[in-house]
Amino acid sequence: SPSERNLSTDGPLHPRESREIMSKFSQDLSGFKAVVFDIDGVLSGRTVAMNDRGELIRTTNVHDGYAMRLASRAGIILGIITGGHGDEIRNRFEPIGVKYIYERCHRKAEKLMELCLTAQIEPSEVIYCGDDLIDIPAMRLAGYSVAPSDAAEDVLMVADHVCAVAGGQGVAREVLEEMLRARGEWGIVTDLPTF
Amino acid sequence: SPSERNLSTDGPLHPRESREIMSKFSQDLSGFKAVVFDIDGVLSGRTVAMNDRGELIRTTNVHDGYAMRLASRAGIILGIITGGHGDEIRNRFEPIGVKYIYERCHRKAEKLMELCLTAQIEPSEVIYCGDDLIDIPAMRLAGYSVAPSDAAEDVLMVADHVCAVAGGQGVAREVLEEMLRARGEWGIVTDLPTF
Amino acid sequence: SPSERNLSTDGPLHPRESREIMSKFSQDLSGFKAVVFDIDGVLSGRTVAMNDRGELIRTTNVHDGYAMRLASRAGIILGIITGGHGDEIRNRFEPIGVKYIYERCHRKAEKLMELCLTAQIEPSEVIYCGDDLIDIPAMRLAGYSVAPSDAAEDVLMVADHVCAVAGGQGVAREVLEEMLRARGEWGIVTDLPTF
Amino acid sequence: SPSERNLSTDGPLHPRESREIMSKFSQDLSGFKAVVFDIDGVLSGRTVAMNDRGELIRTTNVHDGYAMRLASRAGIILGIITGGHGDEIRNRFEPIGVKYIYERCHRKAEKLMELCLTAQIEPSEVIYCGDDLIDIPAMRLAGYSVAPSDAAEDVLMVADHVCAVAGGQGVAREVLEEMLRARGEWGIVTDLPTF
Repeated sequence: SPSERNLSTDGPLHPRESREIMSKFSQDLSGFKAVVFDIDGVLSGRTVAMNDRGELIRTTNVHDGYAMRLASRAGIILGIITGGHGDEIRNRFEPIGVKYIYERCHRKAEKLMELCLTAQIEPSEVIYCGDDLIDIPAMRLAGYSVAPSDAAEDVLMVADHVCAVAGGQGVAREVLEEMLRARGEWGIVTDLPTF
Repeated sequence: SPSERNLSTDGPLHPRESREIMSKFSQDLSGFKAVVFDIDGVLSGRTVAMNDRGELIRTTNVHDGYAMRLASRAGIILGIITGGHGDEIRNRFEPIGVKYIYERCHRKAEKLMELCLTAQIEPSEVIYCGDDLIDIPAMRLAGYSVAPSDAAEDVLMVADHVCAVAGGQGVAREVLEEMLRARGEWGIVTDLPTF
Repeated sequence: SPSERNLSTDGPLHPRESREIMSKFSQDLSGFKAVVFDIDGVLSGRTVAMNDRGELIRTTNVHDGYAMRLASRAGIILGIITGGHGDEIRNRFEPIGVKYIYERCHRKAEKLMELCLTAQIEPSEVIYCGDDLIDIPAMRLAGYSVAPSDAAEDVLMVADHVCAVAGGQGVAREVLEEMLRARGEWGIVTDLPTF
Repeated sequence: SPSERNLSTDGPLHPRESREIMSKFSQDLSGFKAVVFDIDGVLSGRTVAMNDRGELIRTTNVHDGYAMRLASRAGIILGIITGGHGDEIRNRFEPIGVKYIYERCHRKAEKLMELCLTAQIEPSEVIYCGDDLIDIPAMRLAGYSVAPSDAAEDVLMVADHVCAVAGGQGVAREVLEEMLRARGEWGIVTDLPTF
């Protein structure tokens, strides 16, 4: 009944609630320093609308967005390496904490190496999330690789982790929530915007 | 055959038809006075398109809309508390009866308390519908809490009711139809717009 | 092998191909003269995007469109009775053969009666397709009633036929293809645009 | 562990990875010279949003796009024959290698013949992908015919191959990836944009 309910506001989650959820990942993600994402088919859906100019009208997932804000605040480095381009990419992802955004990149492993040099981290400290052939070299270079459930067949074979969700449906959330849980930093801040 | 059909127009549903549908809720909702919704992932989908400015192109569900009109007419107080913002929020929801709309709110339990003071109701008389960590304090504060089927795992654990539908796919309809059925006010008015 | 293939172009389907597909309808639809549709949740999806003004960005199904062209050419009267409104409704449906379009209608059975008087047909000769409470009086008035698979529960109970597909996913196609098959007029014309 | 990972960048896939994926097609596609697509319900989804003018807001699949770039580079002729029209068609598909684009075509077998004469190939060397009645003559004329999983029932009956995916969800990818695998040209180039 309402009278028995916990009326405390805006506090942290009870730790037990957070720990009850079991990991589906093959490895402890707490030691990685950065997560780098492809956009099309990973942060955005594989099938999207087009405008008159034939440009993609990309999608975004609000649970991804919230996890990116939490991860950025927790000091996790976030990056995007995409072959595509579009004003909405920086407009959407910079304000929610994605520090490194590289557009029009077709040699992604080289660009990932450049990101690592700039951020002063090792590729082995990076989790890379990709969905198509062009992502495979960067997936091999990174310390841990993640693919959406609907990634290309070759990508599914090389990925260290295949997500429960398809591209655009919460890939970043699945990875970042797992990282923050592993670090004991999930569910502590609750006053960040979720959209 | 057509000649055997009921030709009466625009009348109420036969009460028996309405009562045949069984409740899937754990509790009688007839006594609650207000229903307050998060938007992103609840009234709107978890994955949505973006415009060039990286802003969400939110979705709306026409069955939600019709139930909101019916609920508002029946005197149920409707509210929205969202961390997001956008012109379409007031433009869509004010005309269909949502009286309290708070945008850019990241401390939702505090805002729910403010809504209750303004509307002169108790938090225990409110049903709150949310889908992510930021909603949990408000869900605890409210008398009854509802989560879409695809809410964050922590939210699914604390919700009093998990919907049959995902965020954006009819969460408000599921709650408001149940409330109106419990009050015996479902299916009486049929001349309100549905869209 | 390619050499064994039928190289005739643009001819009718072989009748046997068309007849092999079994009807899933409870009744012979060949005698009905008109099909009238609700839009939101029937021709358009139940969950759709919104523009800045909070107006629905409706969806359309290309298989519905092709069947409407074929049905119109075959002399079947097509109509729309919607509580909603929008420029895209006439712009989309008039060119593909929908003769009667009524917007902003909340007493649909009365409007259906008006359509019948104008078109000089009986309500018993009309198939009405609707998905929410507001459609029930018109569904009762019409000679045969159809609901999408995701219609409101009350509507599912009163419909003569529940579609295999959800609203927006080909409801008109399912009904009109069945009518044209029953009349022996399916698959004869193949030079109409499909979009 | 990271130290055991292959750190080579941007090289070809290991051949074994590529060959491990079994074909689901009934025939060896390596000998075909061209692939011709319908748009609505094939490259774009069957249900799409509309603009104010009632025009389709078509969708595109990023995995289709990447496979089209690879196929074009490998010398496979790509074409589109659609009853529809729209600026986004040329804007999207010409830059990714579709050489023959015919809009507003309602007699598709005749247009396919014209394409073959222009490209100096035989219809028997063409794979045609369609989803509705209007496509059937072209499907019969072509050497091999493909339908999305949600094509019209008549089309499913005449198609040589029914895709695992629905229209708009990767039909071109399924066909072109199979062709390139059969030719031993899949997974060699990885520096093309994927979007």
